Amino acid sequence: MKDVIFKGILIVNGDGEIVGRRDVAIRDGIISKISREDLGTYAKEVIDGKELLLMPGFINTHTHAEMVYFRGMLEDMTIQDWFNKGIWVVEGGLTEDDVYWAALLAVYEMIDSGITTFADHYFFMDKVAEVVDKVGIRADLAWAFFGSGEDWEEKFERALRFTQNWHKRSNRITTSLGPHAPYTCPPDLLREAAGIAKKEGWKIHIHAAETKEQTEDSLEKYGMTPIEILADTGILESHTIIAHALGVTDGDMDILSKHRVGISYAPKTYMKLAMGAGKVKEIMEKGVKIGFGTDGQGSSNTVNIWEQMRLGALFLKYHYNDPTKFTLSEIIKMATKDAAKVLGMKDVGDIKEGYKADLITISFSSPYLSPLGDPRAHIIYTLQNKDIRDVMVDGKFLKRDGLLVGFDFDLTRREIEKRKKRLFSLKGQKLLQYYPA
Amino acid sequence: MKDVIFKGILIVNGDGEIVGRRDVAIRDGIISKISREDLGTYAKEVIDGKELLLMPGFINTHTHAEMVYFRGMLEDMTIQDWFNKGIWVVEGGLTEDDVYWAALLAVYEMIDSGITTFADHYFFMDKVAEVVDKVGIRADLAWAFFGSGEDWEEKFERALRFTQNWHKRSNRITTSLGPHAPYTCPPDLLREAAGIAKKEGWKIHIHAAETKEQTEDSLEKYGMTPIEILADTGILESHTIIAHALGVTDGDMDILSKHRVGISYAPKTYMKLAMGAGKVKEIMEKGVKIGFGTDGQGSSNTVNIWEQMRLGALFLKYHYNDPTKFTLSEIIKMATKDAAKVLGMKDVGDIKEGYKADLITISFSSPYLSPLGDPRAHIIYTLQNKDIRDVMVDGKFLKRDGLLVGFDFDLTRREIEKRKKRLFSLKGQKLLQYYPA
Repeated sequence: MKDVIFKGILIVNGDGEIVGRRDVAIRDGIISKISREDLGTYAKEVIDGKELLLMPGFINTHTHAEMVYFRGMLEDMTIQDWFNKGIWVVEGGLTEDDVYWAALLAVYEMIDSGITTFADHYFFMDKVAEVVDKVGIRADLAWAFFGSGEDWEEKFERALRFTQNWHKRSNRITTSLGPHAPYTCPPDLLREAAGIAKKEGWKIHIHAAETKEQTEDSLEKYGMTPIEILADTGILESHTIIAHALGVTDGDMDILSKHRVGISYAPKTYMKLAMGAGKVKEIMEKGVKIGFGTDGQGSSNTVNIWEQMRLGALFLKYHYNDPTKFTLSEIIKMATKDAAKVLGMKDVGDIKEGYKADLITISFSSPYLSPLGDPRAHIIYTLQNKDIRDVMVDGKFLKRDGLLVGFDFDLTRREIEKRKKRLFSLKGQKLLQYYPA
Repeated sequence: MKDVIFKGILIVNGDGEIVGRRDVAIRDGIISKISREDLGTYAKEVIDGKELLLMPGFINTHTHAEMVYFRGMLEDMTIQDWFNKGIWVVEGGLTEDDVYWAALLAVYEMIDSGITTFADHYFFMDKVAEVVDKVGIRADLAWAFFGSGEDWEEKFERALRFTQNWHKRSNRITTSLGPHAPYTCPPDLLREAAGIAKKEGWKIHIHAAETKEQTEDSLEKYGMTPIEILADTGILESHTIIAHALGVTDGDMDILSKHRVGISYAPKTYMKLAMGAGKVKEIMEKGVKIGFGTDGQGSSNTVNIWEQMRLGALFLKYHYNDPTKFTLSEIIKMATKDAAKVLGMKDVGDIKEGYKADLITISFSSPYLSPLGDPRAHIIYTLQNKDIRDVMVDGKFLKRDGLLVGFDFDLTRREIEKRKKRLFSLKGQKLLQYYPA
């Protein structure tokens, strides 16, 4: 018996193509059948698709989703002040329980906006894994570490243990090794991390060449760009998720094109902190995949991929001075199919038989979505969370008919408010890092 | 007896300042009292403000809100194709009933997102006035006209009659004379329109210097910039609402600073059509007020000011390469108090005793709004329509506890879908205009 059948639902696939109306059956967490024929109603749950659209869930290729405590707290600041007077002061006081509750809120925030997979890069990741395991979303988790501070070796060991412990332990959780960045991890540490990752078959998730300034600093300090350091230290010998990469050179793009890498692009942060627009078109022309990421709420306020798609489409059309580029289908592909490739995932990010049932449905029944034009335009330029009716991961509903499944928001909010109060009243703790390092 | 008392509600005013918690009383459409003291509960309606924020309603300084039929229909096109293969083909087939139904949908779309006043520039404006009058929103209405086509004189006359008929006829409706733009109205027509507006005491609402290219074309054709033409023809002798003005020169800014003008800024359209970023900082430094506008749904897909605030803050921080500028308070001011000045309105756009009760309340009870940081950051960077709980114009609720008051959405949607189908199946009608003219 099938678990779910969507009847006559309009499909947009991971290439951003409008496929047409189909019956879609879900069984044991897999898209078992997509058919023009009537698949009947023999299933535990039957959903009338007449007023709905079905598409792959959004994939968030880079976030620090537990930065909920910083939301709306660090505004109108330079990137230096944002790190040194904000983030890296408060993060020194974080406990693992703070991270647990933050992950719980953030995961439901993501589900509410249609995200079915996220790649997270933060601390106390065993707590994040606990939340992911419990709630039912899919995630690639990396425990971030730096190469400075008295206890850096201990923290590195802890990151290694986490990566090992959760590697292939769950159907919905993969791990990546998470060195913070070439500017905060010296080459020797990157080399050691690269060697372990290659031997163990782990992916790596790292920030690199975040801005042009970082590339210039790196050339001055090491005689190499951050991307050249990644190649030189062996990082790029494992599948690597690179966050931001706005400061890449032409030579860097050649290096990237020869390795298994994907880039995460988070336009809300880039605009807000005036970091630049990067080289999205040029990198994609080299065959390197780029997916949207949200970054953390400290800079981007939200962890929401449709917002990054909207901003990304607008920002890139403006930046390249060409309204005909970054089309509806390209932007949807960057948020789904290409994003899956960025994370090295093979059977999510599209609607195909045999793929994992990581899906969302969209309803067009809000005034601002009327009349129905190209539904992809409504997805990219118009919709809001309330229009995302259902969110399914591995065939299970995490949002159903507009409601988050199993979320005790009131309890979570009380915990978050209490912990935030404590974190922001801490005095005199040491900076976790200094920017620029 | 008071009509409404908000009890202990957190106020953000039109300067974007957090005022604190107050009791606020509304009587006969006016903010009659703002008090630190308890104002009691002797009122027709009492609203507990404990979990709410009160701020001035958003003001949309420039839209063609009836362009709902184009939503999601003209994507990934150059500005030339967008006009000549899209907008100006279909608009030739519009009837006054098409405009009536479009206005009804658009007005509720605006109310839903917290807009209490809009400045509209379109055709068959008597139908829009009918909707505004019935629904209860506030508007400044301009009937757009061109200086070409066989029947341009007849259309100009009709625009004059409308402006005259609705001038000061309603407490909630003002009118402006609406010549389309210097590139579509020859100087003689602008001069005639300017003379009538000055004599009658009307405002003028016009597009000008939309892009740098328009300014260059104008210099070539007339030896004057579009703004110089506005000055030369006498348009600027009346209060003038200028849409876009991205292509202004230094000399133009000097002219603007010496007249009663306001500029409408609609970043979603500018990014999407790659029109440029303009000179917002430089114009504001000259003392000229700029407010956000939505433009029409044909380019911006939505008529929603919080979205334009969000995009505007991000876009302007990026454009000026300075994350410390266009602060929370400045952006809120541009959407409320300054926007009222752009429209020449004196007693809306702020929360002050004696001002009109054009207000919205915001609830912070969505996961993505938790925890509560600076509430202004949540307004600009995070909220969605569902968080705007109440919308009040002239002391009357148009949205109440999340629901639109008196809107038959199903009927409206059916009418809109039917009319859209007809409009887009029309063949062979003449272009309304040609771009560039």
